Amino acid sequence: MQALDRKIYLKKMDLDRALELYLSRLRETGFFQPRTENIKVSEALDRVLARAVFALRSVPHYNSAAVDGIAVRSSDTVQASKHAPKRLDRDHFAIVNTGQPMPEGFDAVIMIEDVHFLEDGSVEIFEPVPSFHNVRTIGEDVVEYDMLFCRYHRLAPQDLSLLLAAGVFEVEVLKKPECVVVPTGDEIVDPYSELKEGSIPETNSILVKAFLERLGANVKVHDPLGDDPTKLASALQELLPTHDLVLFIGGSSAGQKDYVYRVLEKHGEVLVHGLSIRPGKPTILAIVEEKPVIGLPGFPASCFTVLERVVKPILQAWYRSSESDEDFLEAEVATRMFSSVGDDEFVRVMLAKVKDRYVCVPLKRGAATMSSLTKMDGTIVVPKGQEVIDEGKKVQVLLTASRKRIDNTVLFVGSNDPLIDRLSDLLIERGLNLSVVNVGSLGGVRAIAKSYAHLAGVHLFDSESETYNLPFLRKMMKHFVLVKFVKRLQGLVVQKGNPKSIKSLHDLARRDVKFVNRQKASGTRILLDYYLSKLGIDPRQINGYEKEELTHAAVALKIKRNLADVGLAVSYVAQLMDLDFVPLCWEEYDLLVLPEFLKDERFGIILDVMASSDFKNVVSESSGYDISDLGRVVEEVGSL
Amino acid sequence: MQALDRKIYLKKMDLDRALELYLSRLRETGFFQPRTENIKVSEALDRVLARAVFALRSVPHYNSAAVDGIAVRSSDTVQASKHAPKRLDRDHFAIVNTGQPMPEGFDAVIMIEDVHFLEDGSVEIFEPVPSFHNVRTIGEDVVEYDMLFCRYHRLAPQDLSLLLAAGVFEVEVLKKPECVVVPTGDEIVDPYSELKEGSIPETNSILVKAFLERLGANVKVHDPLGDDPTKLASALQELLPTHDLVLFIGGSSAGQKDYVYRVLEKHGEVLVHGLSIRPGKPTILAIVEEKPVIGLPGFPASCFTVLERVVKPILQAWYRSSESDEDFLEAEVATRMFSSVGDDEFVRVMLAKVKDRYVCVPLKRGAATMSSLTKMDGTIVVPKGQEVIDEGKKVQVLLTASRKRIDNTVLFVGSNDPLIDRLSDLLIERGLNLSVVNVGSLGGVRAIAKSYAHLAGVHLFDSESETYNLPFLRKMMKHFVLVKFVKRLQGLVVQKGNPKSIKSLHDLARRDVKFVNRQKASGTRILLDYYLSKLGIDPRQINGYEKEELTHAAVALKIKRNLADVGLAVSYVAQLMDLDFVPLCWEEYDLLVLPEFLKDERFGIILDVMASSDFKNVVSESSGYDISDLGRVVEEVGSL
Repeated sequence: MQALDRKIYLKKMDLDRALELYLSRLRETGFFQPRTENIKVSEALDRVLARAVFALRSVPHYNSAAVDGIAVRSSDTVQASKHAPKRLDRDHFAIVNTGQPMPEGFDAVIMIEDVHFLEDGSVEIFEPVPSFHNVRTIGEDVVEYDMLFCRYHRLAPQDLSLLLAAGVFEVEVLKKPECVVVPTGDEIVDPYSELKEGSIPETNSILVKAFLERLGANVKVHDPLGDDPTKLASALQELLPTHDLVLFIGGSSAGQKDYVYRVLEKHGEVLVHGLSIRPGKPTILAIVEEKPVIGLPGFPASCFTVLERVVKPILQAWYRSSESDEDFLEAEVATRMFSSVGDDEFVRVMLAKVKDRYVCVPLKRGAATMSSLTKMDGTIVVPKGQEVIDEGKKVQVLLTASRKRIDNTVLFVGSNDPLIDRLSDLLIERGLNLSVVNVGSLGGVRAIAKSYAHLAGVHLFDSESETYNLPFLRKMMKHFVLVKFVKRLQGLVVQKGNPKSIKSLHDLARRDVKFVNRQKASGTRILLDYYLSKLGIDPRQINGYEKEELTHAAVALKIKRNLADVGLAVSYVAQLMDLDFVPLCWEEYDLLVLPEFLKDERFGIILDVMASSDFKNVVSESSGYDISDLGRVVEEVGSL
Repeated sequence: MQALDRKIYLKKMDLDRALELYLSRLRETGFFQPRTENIKVSEALDRVLARAVFALRSVPHYNSAAVDGIAVRSSDTVQASKHAPKRLDRDHFAIVNTGQPMPEGFDAVIMIEDVHFLEDGSVEIFEPVPSFHNVRTIGEDVVEYDMLFCRYHRLAPQDLSLLLAAGVFEVEVLKKPECVVVPTGDEIVDPYSELKEGSIPETNSILVKAFLERLGANVKVHDPLGDDPTKLASALQELLPTHDLVLFIGGSSAGQKDYVYRVLEKHGEVLVHGLSIRPGKPTILAIVEEKPVIGLPGFPASCFTVLERVVKPILQAWYRSSESDEDFLEAEVATRMFSSVGDDEFVRVMLAKVKDRYVCVPLKRGAATMSSLTKMDGTIVVPKGQEVIDEGKKVQVLLTASRKRIDNTVLFVGSNDPLIDRLSDLLIERGLNLSVVNVGSLGGVRAIAKSYAHLAGVHLFDSESETYNLPFLRKMMKHFVLVKFVKRLQGLVVQKGNPKSIKSLHDLARRDVKFVNRQKASGTRILLDYYLSKLGIDPRQINGYEKEELTHAAVALKIKRNLADVGLAVSYVAQLMDLDFVPLCWEEYDLLVLPEFLKDERFGIILDVMASSDFKNVVSESSGYDISDLGRVVEEVGSL
C-alpha cells in the first residue's frame, strides 16, 4: 500500500525558533564570515563596503576662489570703506573665477559685484575683507586620512562621487552570495509550453531569482529536476562547491514525493523540516557540507512567505544590514477572519484610508494563490493560538506597498463587473489607484454602511417592485448615495451552439444539464433564487446548484471548459469567451458611494473618467451594456 | 575689459513655477507621449507596463486535488459518519496527491489523515463531503481574460510569476528614457589622474548616471568637453537624434564661461535660466528640437539638489508614477539657522531620536560640499522669505534615510577625535549606527544640556585647577554623566624635520612663522588661549590666528601642504600625516552622556565595544593616546 509507506507528519517548528537555530548554526559554519573582493568604484553602486574607507586626497585639493571676483591681499583692504574706496592697481589684484586656484600671494576674494572697475585697469573696493574671505580652502570638505565611510555601508550614487574626489578608485566590498535555484518535481514543465492536465508550469524560479537579486545576490536557475533522488543528489554535489546557498523548490511537502528532504537528510543535516506558519509549512532548512541548503515549498504563496520570512533574514545577515525595513500600519479589519490555531498565519490584505482610519480587506488565503501576491498592500500576522479576528478589530499590518500608494487608494468592493477593471485602468491616467475586491452586492452595502470602502458595486433586485437598487437600499440604509452606472444584460451562458438546447430557467432542472452557480449574497444569486421561486423550481433539483463561483468570468470559464453546461452571468463574458447566450433580463448595476466620499476630489475624477470618450469606447466594444443613465447621482436621506 | 563683457545676473525663477512651466512645455512637445516596446516577461522586472494586461490562460488550468488524499464521488459519501464509517472499494476512490488532476468522474477529495486504509485495499471514511471539497478548481486564482494589471504598473518579482502562469510571455512596457550626460568645463579632468591646482576631477557624471539609472533611465556618459561653444554645439546636434534627454554638467553658472547657456539659447529655447533655490541656482532648462536639454550646476550639492528637485519629477512623469515618495518627519532644530531670504534653501541634516522627539542637526551648507550629501538623513526646506529658523523650532524634514535607520542612530556631537570615527566603525558590527557631528567641546555640552544629542566628546580645560572636564562641567551643569575616554597628547604640529625650529608656543609670535588655528569654542582653542594669556603672548602677534579649522586633521593638512608652519593638534594627526610634533600637554578627552541614555541598552553596547580588544588594538596603533581610565562612568548631581 503506497500510502502507508510515506512520512506523513512534519515536525513543525515555530518560525522564530527555526530561524534563530538556523542562523546560529550558519554562524558556526562560518557562512557569515565576510568574504570580500576589490572592485572599481565605478562598479560599486549599491555594494556593501567590507571595511572602513579613508580619504587618500583632500577635497578640494587646493585653495580656490569660492566666487567670481578679484583675488586680493587682505592686508591691502584694511582701510577700504564706502566713503573712502580703496584703489588697487593691476599688481594688487587678479581676476578669478569660481574654482580657480588662488594666485600666489593673494589670500582673499572680493565678489565681482562689489568691485568698481576703472578705465585705467585699476579697481576700487569698498570694504575690508579678512584673510581667506571667499576662499575655499584645501580640505574644506574632506581632509586626506578622514574616514569617509564605516564598514558595511551600502554605497549610494553620491558616495561614488565622493570616493573618486577623495582619490579612492577601488573599494573592498562584501562578495555577493552565489545562489542557485533548483526547481524540482515530475509535474513541473516549461511555463512557455502548452499545458496538459496535471502538469504545473514552473513559475517559481523567476520569482525566487528576482527576489534574491533585489537583496543583492547573484542567482542562477538550474534546469528543473524530476523526482529522482539520484539526480537531486548529484546536482547537489555538483552545485555545492561553487555556490554559497542552494535552494530547491517543491518536493518539500510531506506528500509521496518528498525526495528533497530524503536527499538532504542523507547528505547533510536537516535542522528544520516544517514550520508552523501558513502558508509556508513544508519548508526544509538544512546544512550540507557547511553550506545552507533550503527546500522552499512549491505553492507560490508558501514560497513567497518563506522567501520573506526565512531567506531574506539570511541575506540581510550576510550583508550585516542591522536595520529591519519592516514598516507597520494600524488598520481596522473589514471582515471577521478565522485562522489556524496551531500556526502563525500570514494573511495578505489590501489597504485604504477610509474616513480617517485605515481599513484592511483580506485577500484570498490558500498557499496556492498567486494573484493575491500581486495585489497585496501588506500582511497581517495572526499569531499561533488566535483563532479569530473580529471585524472592526485594530491590527498591525506589515506594509509591502508604500504609505503614499495606500493613502492614494480608492477602495471599491461589492459586486463584480468587468467594466470596473477597465475603469480602474483608465483612472491610472489620472493618477488614481482603484483597488477592487469582490464581495458581492450585499457585501458592498455592508462595507459602505460600516465605512469600510469608498465605493461599492451593487445590483440588488427588489422582488416586490421587480426593480433594482433604490427600493432595496431604502429598506437597508437611512442615508445613501448612489451613482447610476450601467444596465447590463443577464442571462444564461451556454456552450457554443447551445448543444443542450437550453432556452429558459426551466432547463436548469433537467437531469442532463449541469449548472454552475454564483456565491450566496451576490446580486446574481439573489436574482436566480427569485426567479426559481417565482417559477416554482426547487434548487435541489438543479445539478450543480452548490458549486459556487465568485465572478461572472469564472462561471463562463466552467462552461467553456465543459465543466458545466449553463450558468447565470452577464452577456459580456459570453462574448469574451465566445459562448452562446440566452438573454433573461436587464439589470441595473450601480455604484453605492460612501457619503463622505462625495466631496472628495477623487470622486470628481471618477465621474469625469466615467463620462470620458475613452470609457464610452470601452463600453461600446462590450456587448450587453446600456449606459444611458451613466453618472447620475442619487442621494437619499430616508426616515428609516 | 573681460569682466564687463559678461552676463552677470541670472533671471531666477521659483522652483515650482519653473518645473510647472517646463513640464507643461515638454507635454506640448510630446515628450511624455508613451513610447513602448515589447519585451520578454523574464526581462521585465521593475519595468512599467504600457497597457493593461489580460490573462491568456486560467490559473490553475485544470481541476486538481488540493490536498494529499483520496478522490471520491461526493454522492458516495452522504451517509458516512464516525459511528457508521462508509466503506469504499477500489473502484470508488483513487489516491491523489496535491496538484494531481482530479480523476475522471470524481468530484471531491478526502484528506489522507481522515481515511482508514483496510487490508483488502478498500478504505473507510467518516464524514460526508460536498462536491468540490478539497478540489482546486480551474480558474480559482485567475480566469483567462481577467485583467491582471492596469497600465503603468511596475512589475515586481511575484508579478512575473503570475504573468507566466497566466500564459503571458511578452509584455508591452514603457521604453526607458535614453539619457546622455555631458560634463563640461576646461577645468574638468579625469578623476583618476594626478590632480593639479585649478583642475577639478570630474566626479559628477558618476552621480548623475547612478541617480538616473535608479529612476529607470538608460544613461550614457559622454567624454568631457572643454569650454568651446563649437564643440558643445556639435555634440548637442550629434546627441539629440538618439537621446530623449541631454544633460550638460557645469558651465551653467553666470561666470565668465557660461557657454552651455549660450549654445542652448542659440540652438533652442531656454525656458529657465536660474532657479531661486540654494544650492542649485545656476540651472538651465531648455528645449532643443522638441527635446529637453538641461544644464546642471557643476557644484556637487547643487547638482544633487537639481537632480532631486527637477530631473526626478521629469522621469517620474515619464513613467506616470503618480505617487510622490516624499516622506516627512517632524524634528526639532538643534541650532539656530540663517538662510537666504531670496531663495528656497535646502539644508541637509542628520537626524536622531533623542528623548522621544526627533532632533535635526544641519550639516555643512555650501554648494560645493560633497561629504554632506553622503552623510545626510534628510533635508529641511527653508522657504524664500524666511531668514532664520530658531533653535528648538519644529520643522518638517524630507527624509532620505529610512525611519528605521534614524530610530537606530546614536547622535554624537562635540569635539572631534579620530578615535570616535574608528569607534563608530566597530559599533556597526554590533548593529549600532553612530552619527558624528563636530561642533566643538562647548557645543557638545550645550547639546547634551538641551537634549540634542546622546553623547558629546569634550576636553574642557579649567584654568583655575589646570585640569579637564569635571571642574568645568561642575560649573556649567547641575547634573551630568561623564564616561572617561582617553588622555591624548596635545602639541605643536610642525613640518617634517621642523625646518623653522619651533620649540614652544613662544615661537608662534615669530614673524617668519605662519600659524593655523582651531575654531572658537573648541577645546583646543580654549587651551591655546589659556596658554597664550599665561605666557603673555598677544594673539594679534600671531600670523594666522584668524584662520580657523574645524578638526585636528584639517590643521595638520595645512601644515603638510605648506600653507602654515605650525598648529595646535593631537599627536595622532602628526603621525598620520608624517609630520613632526612638539608635545605640550596631556589632555583628557571624555564622553558626556545624556543622563537618560545611561539606561539605554545601546549605551551598554558602546561601553562594551570601548572595552573590546578590537578597539584597544586601534588605539595601540595610534600614537599619543593613554586609555588607562577608559570606560569609567562618573555621575554627579550638583547643587548648582
